[in-house]
Amino acid sequence: MGRWAPGAQGRLEQAALDLYVEQGFENTTVSEIAERAGLTERTFFRYFADKREVLFSGAEALKEFLVSTTLGAPDTAPPMEAVALALEAAGAALQERGMAAKRRHGVIMANPELQERELIKMASWAADLADALRKRGVEDPTATLAAETSMAVFRVAFTDWVQEPKKRDLPQTIRASLDQLRTITTDR
Amino acid sequence: MGRWAPGAQGRLEQAALDLYVEQGFENTTVSEIAERAGLTERTFFRYFADKREVLFSGAEALKEFLVSTTLGAPDTAPPMEAVALALEAAGAALQERGMAAKRRHGVIMANPELQERELIKMASWAADLADALRKRGVEDPTATLAAETSMAVFRVAFTDWVQEPKKRDLPQTIRASLDQLRTITTDR
Repeated sequence: MGRWAPGAQGRLEQAALDLYVEQGFENTTVSEIAERAGLTERTFFRYFADKREVLFSGAEALKEFLVSTTLGAPDTAPPMEAVALALEAAGAALQERGMAAKRRHGVIMANPELQERELIKMASWAADLADALRKRGVEDPTATLAAETSMAVFRVAFTDWVQEPKKRDLPQTIRASLDQLRTITTDR
Repeated sequence: MGRWAPGAQGRLEQAALDLYVEQGFENTTVSEIAERAGLTERTFFRYFADKREVLFSGAEALKEFLVSTTLGAPDTAPPMEAVALALEAAGAALQERGMAAKRRHGVIMANPELQERELIKMASWAADLADALRKRGVEDPTATLAAETSMAVFRVAFTDWVQEPKKRDLPQTIRASLDQLRTITTDR
């Protein structure tokens, strides 16, 4: 396979996910991933630092999308609404990935080290979301509070959606979780 | 120093925190901590697995306190109120540690590896809090949503309190953050 194999990154991601689901993340080597994708290990390392990073390669783009959607929300939108719009948009993007997003989630939940990496990723998203809110003129601690709780909402909604995907789509599930957060914070 | 040196654990914790603040966590060795406490390295390892764990030795007890307070909240308390009572009680316990809690926070914020460990600790607290809520008859996703968002509130309130400790005590700051969460979830 040549250096510029078309769609190499996507094929590596697909092969890695297949193997992680089939035989477990721990038991899969970079060599196996490359072989399954019909590529070389060298090509793998052109795209990913290690086998873990295959699962997190889309995270940066999704975070930037969250941030730009938050920044682009109508000026009149209160903090949680600005973030809600961003979460729904990110949810719609994830929904398009369909089964890949669900299978990725299953792989991560099966491995403590990956769960830790996922936690760190979400914390970094929360920090950047808080930053976006501050740019919108929201002061701390409100900005941090809105960002951190909305990431909690996102995590809960995503897990809910993965478990019962037929009931609602992901953006609807996110909106329902935000509504539920309002209910439980009011009803006390 | 003998094997049963009185207050050895507390002296080691104090010595470790002093050194981490003075010269940085990275630059401090177990040998230095033991020497500062007037104890041996052997004694150190009787209490702590490594120099990082000195900072997390109280976490398990605090988590159990959070869980038992949640379980012990009045039967009529809605989920967020049950958790709020637990957070306030934990806040009061932390407040009693005073400067030690604040200095610990400073050490953790200065080191990415410690921040990750702190994130993982908080995630484990959230999981156990959700479990306590389920034992109170709260169903998922409400139980997880209440637990995860309340940990976000706790984190924000704690940071706020560390930065401006004179304004309010920690339980008041936690209650104020919960009130603020209600405001921002309603106002959107």
